[in-house]
Amino acid sequence: MKQVTIIGLGLIGASLGLALKQTKSAPRIIGHDNQYDAATHASKLKAVDKIERDISAAVAGSDLVVIATPITAISPVMRSIAGTLDRGAVVTDTGSTKREIVLQAREFLPEYVSFVGGHPMTGKATAGVDDADASLFRNTVYCLTPTASTPESAVAALDTLVREIGAYSFFLDPAEHDGLVAGISHLPYLLSASLMRVLSRESSWREMSELAAGGFELTTRLAAQDPKIYGDMLSTNADNVARVLDNLISDLTAARDRLLGPQPTLLPSLEAAQKARLTWESERRKAHDQPH
Amino acid sequence: MKQVTIIGLGLIGASLGLALKQTKSAPRIIGHDNQYDAATHASKLKAVDKIERDISAAVAGSDLVVIATPITAISPVMRSIAGTLDRGAVVTDTGSTKREIVLQAREFLPEYVSFVGGHPMTGKATAGVDDADASLFRNTVYCLTPTASTPESAVAALDTLVREIGAYSFFLDPAEHDGLVAGISHLPYLLSASLMRVLSRESSWREMSELAAGGFELTTRLAAQDPKIYGDMLSTNADNVARVLDNLISDLTAARDRLLGPQPTLLPSLEAAQKARLTWESERRKAHDQPH
Repeated sequence: MKQVTIIGLGLIGASLGLALKQTKSAPRIIGHDNQYDAATHASKLKAVDKIERDISAAVAGSDLVVIATPITAISPVMRSIAGTLDRGAVVTDTGSTKREIVLQAREFLPEYVSFVGGHPMTGKATAGVDDADASLFRNTVYCLTPTASTPESAVAALDTLVREIGAYSFFLDPAEHDGLVAGISHLPYLLSASLMRVLSRESSWREMSELAAGGFELTTRLAAQDPKIYGDMLSTNADNVARVLDNLISDLTAARDRLLGPQPTLLPSLEAAQKARLTWESERRKAHDQPH
Repeated sequence: MKQVTIIGLGLIGASLGLALKQTKSAPRIIGHDNQYDAATHASKLKAVDKIERDISAAVAGSDLVVIATPITAISPVMRSIAGTLDRGAVVTDTGSTKREIVLQAREFLPEYVSFVGGHPMTGKATAGVDDADASLFRNTVYCLTPTASTPESAVAALDTLVREIGAYSFFLDPAEHDGLVAGISHLPYLLSASLMRVLSRESSWREMSELAAGGFELTTRLAAQDPKIYGDMLSTNADNVARVLDNLISDLTAARDRLLGPQPTLLPSLEAAQKARLTWESERRKAHDQPH
């Protein structure tokens, strides 16, 4: 790839630029962000070679276009760039849900370009260009969601990019992707926000907040994330999230009944949770130790 | 205080011994643990000056006795030491719930000693003597739960000890304590365990576990804690935990309904959670910056 355009220069977009500039045959990188500050900062960081303020001009001549904006901006971006994309260009995105976006690509992008949905499973507690980091993708999983009609060459191009920035490709169907992230990403966030909300409404919250330490801090940390970004993930994945949330509500209701039962019998369920978590930790450690 | 006995030489007991040995006028410390390995290790770490294998002999001549065993062992320990406690001795514990323990102290300890319930709000992910650390209590909150009948001198003695190990005393009623920790400690644990259990039962758990990263890791980390220790906290605080759990289930159910509604309107509730979390963080930072 000789030229790559990155649209949206937040944490993910700017970090991707930095990571690409560190590869052996680094492509020329054109950046675009409708926020002046983000664009200027990415330019100063040398995450991009050039800022192009006209979004349709930004994609002309590029082999790859990465849409790294918030979810709700992705389809407007597709419409803005549709007319100036090069024949044969590959387009990808970095949104956290994939079903809707893949459908939008089919609707809004011309037939002579290829779209491969992407979702890098990485991030930081704070999510601005200030934290841009060339190593953000290193040793992380990068989901790619080609469909039956995606050309092999486009998939191969993305797979190469993922390896070059130090991540591992994880190929899956857009619907499968959304089902999985409902459990491991959207539900934990929803839970963390709910816990924070419920405790902060307690009449004794002032005293609670003074005592709150380790366990509370961990479990509510996700609640500090951007509600707009997470709200969009939840609303574009509502069916899947509602399904796992129903399972969780049932499990919590059963725990409540056991707790108030004549003979509290929570131990087996707590042991099952501990075992599952320790197994996950040890398998994750093994996976990190092995070459992929 | 010239002599202190610590019964139970796990993370808390051994760390307390180490912290006390670093104070200016360090007392002589007698340790006891019914597990030979824990006792030997605490001795090697110099967390105690002497190991006494006979529990009733261990408390003789001590001004202060700290019961740092798991919750369910506290009342048996009280019964074992009742006959050999010195007249005027102060007894405390480090259990994570307080109502039952304060009642047990009234029942099992002689009238010529004073009991002050204690709960250091500190810990580590792993909880054994191997991680004992003199600085475990530094800048942490240490709950003390005297009652109307507790002599001032006993409260003052504990308050001095808390300051000497670098912590801050937080005085509250045993029932009030249990209500607060139900929210900020027991509920987060229960939730973390439930989330882990529910996800690990999903038919797609194998794929989920490969994708699971930051948010999942944070939110399920508490599930790895010792189920026996947490199970005992929950069962000795069932009424309070069930009450906050009910509030959480209602909140999650409302979130589910909003999610599946015609127009997803989660944003205001997510924003409320973020605001509460950020406020907590900033007040906590302020509290740490101020001298107590």
